[in-house]
Amino acid sequence: MAEFYAGVDLGGTKILTGIGDADGRIIARSRARTEVEKGEKRIVKNIVRTIHRALEKAELDRDKLSCLGIGSPGPLNISAGIVYETSNLPFKRFPIVEMLEDELELPVLLENDANAAALGEKMFGAGQKAEEMIYITISTGIGGGIISQGRILHGCCDGAGEIGHMIVNPGGPTCGFKQHQGCLEAMSSGTAIIREARKKLVQQETDAFLGFNGSPGELTGFQVAQAARQGDEAAREIYEEMGFYLGIGVANLIDLLNPELIVFGGGVMKARDLFWEIMQHSAADHAIPAVKQDCQLIEAELGEDVGLAGAIAVAISRG
Amino acid sequence: MAEFYAGVDLGGTKILTGIGDADGRIIARSRARTEVEKGEKRIVKNIVRTIHRALEKAELDRDKLSCLGIGSPGPLNISAGIVYETSNLPFKRFPIVEMLEDELELPVLLENDANAAALGEKMFGAGQKAEEMIYITISTGIGGGIISQGRILHGCCDGAGEIGHMIVNPGGPTCGFKQHQGCLEAMSSGTAIIREARKKLVQQETDAFLGFNGSPGELTGFQVAQAARQGDEAAREIYEEMGFYLGIGVANLIDLLNPELIVFGGGVMKARDLFWEIMQHSAADHAIPAVKQDCQLIEAELGEDVGLAGAIAVAISRG
Repeated sequence: MAEFYAGVDLGGTKILTGIGDADGRIIARSRARTEVEKGEKRIVKNIVRTIHRALEKAELDRDKLSCLGIGSPGPLNISAGIVYETSNLPFKRFPIVEMLEDELELPVLLENDANAAALGEKMFGAGQKAEEMIYITISTGIGGGIISQGRILHGCCDGAGEIGHMIVNPGGPTCGFKQHQGCLEAMSSGTAIIREARKKLVQQETDAFLGFNGSPGELTGFQVAQAARQGDEAAREIYEEMGFYLGIGVANLIDLLNPELIVFGGGVMKARDLFWEIMQHSAADHAIPAVKQDCQLIEAELGEDVGLAGAIAVAISRG
Repeated sequence: MAEFYAGVDLGGTKILTGIGDADGRIIARSRARTEVEKGEKRIVKNIVRTIHRALEKAELDRDKLSCLGIGSPGPLNISAGIVYETSNLPFKRFPIVEMLEDELELPVLLENDANAAALGEKMFGAGQKAEEMIYITISTGIGGGIISQGRILHGCCDGAGEIGHMIVNPGGPTCGFKQHQGCLEAMSSGTAIIREARKKLVQQETDAFLGFNGSPGELTGFQVAQAARQGDEAAREIYEEMGFYLGIGVANLIDLLNPELIVFGGGVMKARDLFWEIMQHSAADHAIPAVKQDCQLIEAELGEDVGLAGAIAVAISRG
């Protein structure tokens, strides 16, 4: 009898749900709006609905599911199954696991979304051969997960893996958390790229990114990347700086954790051509050479499925 | 029948050897010069001699020993039992475990000295209740070890835990590894303190550290600390800066690893009064508040015995 697993990628605006087999193949999907504004019970109802819909699409009975994994924004208490207040999910102590187990009569496992993604890449993506690996996702923010001895490193209270908040440029610009000056997210995220580009536009340090003539507030990351590719010096500098600091963060991870692999995902990787080499050089310059040599830096493989595959991986990892 | 364990703290100039019981109590000690210049066989002979001498002092037969743990400077290959070339031990590939096992007919376990110290503090010192802890030693250099789920985190190739080489001030002064600008060791070690003090003396930015009138090369860390305690502004600034960057390193460890405890040892902790509070503030300013709250920062307990207790802990941890 084949075993199947459900995964939920829980976001502030949408719920992505999938049914996967033991090899992480997603055989059916469904989605719904999260409707955070309507409260905890409604979210649970929405999740349950997506699972039933995905089961129908897969033509599976409910009792063919072994476990449900949930990837959620943190902070969490994993063993208690609780989501604490976060910027995306406005709860105090949302006992999501208990509520879903009551509704579904199925074991439910909660995991931080970035950790789940790391486990997804480890089990089904770029990290399949690695027992010691790190996943970094670079999009509007920077997140990540640390895998050690094949398992997610959680720390004492499920707070480990906050790669984006590592300080790489003391006194630098701040990220979303107001007091974090010069953390990796403030230096190398998509938000950081746009912030620097807008600053340059306002200061007219550039020929308006090769003809961009909207207001600075309308400039997108894609436009900055295109300008850089077409030779705009100011745009290129932004990616050079972003890659330089990313390389420092990578060097620190290497020296502290001696991973065999660091896997890079997230939307900003679409502009990989503009910072990858600089990042590699910076990592090599800032890490202990022998420890750097142990580590490969590669691109993630799961693309936009990483959240869902990660949640399914969490369910499978229950073992 | 009581079980006993031997530990060797292997340094570039001396070998410190001890016999401990299962509670880490050191019941006999002995020491010898390492004599690295006389080659591998001589070092092995010197180690064996210290063990026999310690056994005699403890009035124990050789067959009462269960295991020997060795704390050695890295880089190492732990499972192969090999010490690679290092600044202190000029070997290419020293198969220390095999050579000692042949001589002693006893299981021998090799561990990086800073990791061994971390395990020593975890098993017998300040970290006895912690499963997720980090040990930082601040002396001429900065080293450390990471404990996760009660065990040393080694990474893929026994290179993890290089806390001292984490970059905390890009473009800052370099440490011993020439290319590491602004790593924690370059900013906050005993060597960094003296470097800054000598620089200030040469630049005459100070009233000569309250009457110090030797050449800058003669200034010691103790003198800088004494001057700071007596109100010398230049000396105080050095400890303030050192504590600030140490706090950044601590914040990064907290955000990445979510430890419940960070334990600080090493000679520079004698000047703890001059930087501890600043370090705490800097760590709080640079870490995610909730994750920082999970973590206590405390002083190591084993003092100068940490290397020996750590090596014994390594032997005991063989289980």
